[in-house]
Formats: sequence, C-alpha cells, structure tokens
Amino acid sequence: MKFMTFTHGDSVRRVGLVTGEGDTAVVHDLTDTLPGGADLVDLIEHWSTLAPQLAQPADLPSTAVSSVRVLAPIPVPRRNIFCVGKNYREHVVEFGRSGYDSPDRSEAIPEFPVVFSKAPSSVTGPYDDIDPHPGVTSELDYEAELGVIIGVGGRGISREQAAEHVWGYTIIDDFTARDLQRKHKQWLIGKSLDTHCPMGPLAVTADEIPDPTTLRVESFVNGEMRQSATVADLIFDIPTLIETISAGITLQPGDIIATGTPAGVGIGFEPPKFMTSGDVVEASITGLGSQRNSVA
Amino acid sequence: MKFMTFTHGDSVRRVGLVTGEGDTAVVHDLTDTLPGGADLVDLIEHWSTLAPQLAQPADLPSTAVSSVRVLAPIPVPRRNIFCVGKNYREHVVEFGRSGYDSPDRSEAIPEFPVVFSKAPSSVTGPYDDIDPHPGVTSELDYEAELGVIIGVGGRGISREQAAEHVWGYTIIDDFTARDLQRKHKQWLIGKSLDTHCPMGPLAVTADEIPDPTTLRVESFVNGEMRQSATVADLIFDIPTLIETISAGITLQPGDIIATGTPAGVGIGFEPPKFMTSGDVVEASITGLGSQRNSVA
Repeated sequence: MKFMTFTHGDSVRRVGLVTGEGDTAVVHDLTDTLPGGADLVDLIEHWSTLAPQLAQPADLPSTAVSSVRVLAPIPVPRRNIFCVGKNYREHVVEFGRSGYDSPDRSEAIPEFPVVFSKAPSSVTGPYDDIDPHPGVTSELDYEAELGVIIGVGGRGISREQAAEHVWGYTIIDDFTARDLQRKHKQWLIGKSLDTHCPMGPLAVTADEIPDPTTLRVESFVNGEMRQSATVADLIFDIPTLIETISAGITLQPGDIIATGTPAGVGIGFEPPKFMTSGDVVEASITGLGSQRNSVA
Repeated sequence: MKFMTFTHGDSVRRVGLVTGEGDTAVVHDLTDTLPGGADLVDLIEHWSTLAPQLAQPADLPSTAVSSVRVLAPIPVPRRNIFCVGKNYREHVVEFGRSGYDSPDRSEAIPEFPVVFSKAPSSVTGPYDDIDPHPGVTSELDYEAELGVIIGVGGRGISREQAAEHVWGYTIIDDFTARDLQRKHKQWLIGKSLDTHCPMGPLAVTADEIPDPTTLRVESFVNGEMRQSATVADLIFDIPTLIETISAGITLQPGDIIATGTPAGVGIGFEPPKFMTSGDVVEASITGLGSQRNSVA
C-alpha cells in the first residue's frame, strides 16, 4: 500500500491511501477512521489491527492526488531521523577527497556504520522550497537517499529478523550545509537546518518492495543527472543498519533510517557545485515516486 | 519554581511543583490542572498563561517527595537532546590524550561548538538503574552536565536574547559507550543506549538561578569525587550555544541542551576507569539537587 500525508483546500492535515498511478492517482482520506487522526506514525504503531480495515478504500472519500498539497508522509517524526554517512563506496571516495570529511578527510571505507541524526524540524514536504539559510551556510548540498520506516519496534534485532521490523520506505533528501558539517566536527547542525530534509511524496509498505536492493536512487539538479546507484551498492545493508542501531537503542514504530547517499553530490565535483537560489533538485527512487524541491 | 515528574502509588505519570527542601520537601500535584496532563513540555509550551496560576500551590493535593517515585522531569523529549562535546578545557585535553576522540584524537580546543545528539529513548529517571548493555559495550563512562531547557522557541536567537529563551535547568548524566563512540565516528550510537541519559530530579526555572555560570557541576563514583567545575569554565557559554544551534534550527519549547562535561571522566584516568555492575554514579549541580544511579 502507498500512503501520503496531505492537505486539501484548507490547512487540516490528512492521511490517505493512494491508489492508481501518475495522472489518475487518487488519495482515499483515512483521517476520520484513524484513532490518532492524521498521523501516519499512529497508523504504523497500530498496523496489525488497522491494516486489515484498509483493504476496501472504495468506501472512503477520495480526491485526485493532483489536486492536493502533499506533505512529508511523517511531517513531525517523534525523534531525530537516524542517518548513515559514507555508505556507498564511490561517495566515500568523493567525500574523503573533497576535504569536507573533517577532521580526518579519509577515503577509507568505514569499518562500522557512521550514524548521526537530523532534527525533526528539518523535515519538509516533497515539493516544498528549500531555505538556503543565507548568512548561516554558503555551501548547500543535496544527498538523495532511501529512507527505511520502522514498523514493529525492538532492541537487539538481528540481521535475520530485520525485515520483520521494516514497515516501509520513503525518499529522503539529506540536504547538508557542508561548511557547518565541517566546522562543528559532529554533523548534527550541518544536517539539521530547517527545511533541509524533504521527505516523500509516498510512504510505501514493505510488501510492495520484495527486494529493496534492486531500488535505484537518483538525483537531478536543474534536469542534469547527478546521482544514480542501486541500494545493492550500500556498504552496510539495511539489515546490518537495523542490527547495529538496535543493539542498544530500542527502535520505535515510525523511526526513520536514511540509509546513505550515492556518489555525485555537489562536493564530488571540482570545484564543488553548491546549490543556489533557483536551483531545482529532484530525487527519485524506483516505486517510491520522486520529489522536486526548489532552493528559495 | 521547581518541578518534578513522578508516580505515586500507581503507574500514572504526574507533574508536580516542589516546595521545601530535603526531608521536608513536598510535591504539589499539578496533573489535573494542566491541559495536556502529565507533560512538563506542555506546561513549558503554555508557560506565559499557566505560570500565574501556579502561584498558590497550597490548594493542590500534595505528597512528601520522599514517598514518590521520581522520574526524569521530561521523560520523553519530543526530539533528540542537543549535546555539546569538548566544552571544558581540561576535558578536551583528557579526551584528546585518551585516544577516544576518533578519528583525530585532538587535544586542541575546538574552534566551534561540537554538537551531537542523544536519542529520547536513552532518558531515564534520576535514581534508576543504568543498563550496562553487556555484549554491546564494555567501556561505559559517565559525564555530569548542566542541561538547559528551552522555553520560548525561535530561530536566529542572538547571544543577547538567549537568556529570554531559557525556561530552566536540570541535571543530565551523558553516559557514553566509549567503544561505540570511537568506532562509529559520529557519536549518536555511543551516546544513545537505552537508560544512558539519567535526567533530574528537578527542572528548576531560570528565575531561581540568576547567574548559571556560578553553578558547580560535580560527579562521584562510589563516593569518590571525579568531576568538579563551575559552568563559568565552559569554552562556549550558554548564550553562544543557543545562538549557534538556533542559527538555522528552530528551537522549540522543551528542547534540552546538555552543555558539556568537565574533566574527570573515566577515560581521563590511565588506565581508564570504566563503570561496571554495582558502581554507583552521582551527579549534582548547585540548586538542582543530585541524581544517583547504580549500574545494574
């Protein structure tokens, strides 16, 4: 199933089930049938009881997707998004070579996953403008990534059990203020500026994606392809990431893990290609749709 | 004013106003008078309208503090706790010398605040047991810190305006799995294991602490003093931290900033003194009380 969070005609936030494709896609409004209202995380939390009721969307009020305003599927995550750095080989090399991997500037493949976070306040919609934060950063970069959404929580989840804890997937663009990432050493600030985490448009359940390693992650800037890789290229795959994070941290329903970005980000070029006002950044993943954000 | 979150006789979470000191301290139960129930963040969010109503606690049901179970004042922060690393000079030196400051192992004073986060699920009560996570870490360390609680949110807060955004203070022990901190490069995992963020016992409003730089932060392990410094020793003071974080990240009511730890942590010794089962760690700060946690 495919879900989106949206508004339609007013500012009331709604959660809906999406059927159909492209121009004929329709969103069926679930908001009034959910116990917590318009919160996809509530739906995920009570998935085993609520999912069977979603089988007949025909009875729900529906609207053309083209007529609604699409928000991030999880507009306010309940805690920071877990993010993985340096998780595609060629990106490790471009990042190390760029000099931005402060302080060590290493092109070596990490021995263990590099895990940091993005603040929930950085989340924005899949078609919203990106704030360039003039005066705060002058080195804005993009990072298209597959986001894994956790369903059933838990601690000490093994690689073998990991798939049972994945509720679904979404697209995340892990926008990064490279100058802040470098100067603060730890990456939280450089990764968390307001609007620097466009998410969506869809949250797609795991059953629709039998093998996530086949998904292709791509990004385009002003129409020019910048990134293209499949999830099979991850250094630390999704089961390893879930095992690693959950070893001592209880994962919770609705947690999001941004799995890392392929080669082709702005600092991979010489000189670097940073984003400026008017640039349009697109990120797309097989079966998850695409997002398109303009730098304001 | 001093607040605590607690349970009394059952598992219902309550928020109360504390009056009196030591053995005669009493907690006045505010739970039924708060719009959001037992959530201190709700009270902080609506502080300007609710605070005037708190002036007469005598009308509220009250209980001896000694008879309640004290929880963290904010048991479930709405996002990760902002934390500052390497923010006391002598601690920077001990940390650099220890070899745990991966990858650069630097004893140099940071040019800019080093900001990372702890997951909300790491928060535990001020007298709760600490899970040593055997098999996950074998290098458990303590870090007593002053926690700043944000009241009025905002972005682009200047040093001069910063004090207006501080609602109050609490004690945080930023427990750290040193082996995980080192091996994952970014510190999120090593800082976020379940129960590794004891908080409280009190949340004390800013008006009770006219000059936070005078506060003394201390820790003791099995009765032996390990850390003792005043907040005046911070490399980046509280106004600077608020200005730095809020430059591009909108701060929100109830956000917590753990301001960094003084010298004297376990890795400051040679050989390092890591925590093991049965160790008792205390952290205290002038006017904020003290917490005492046993390693399970």
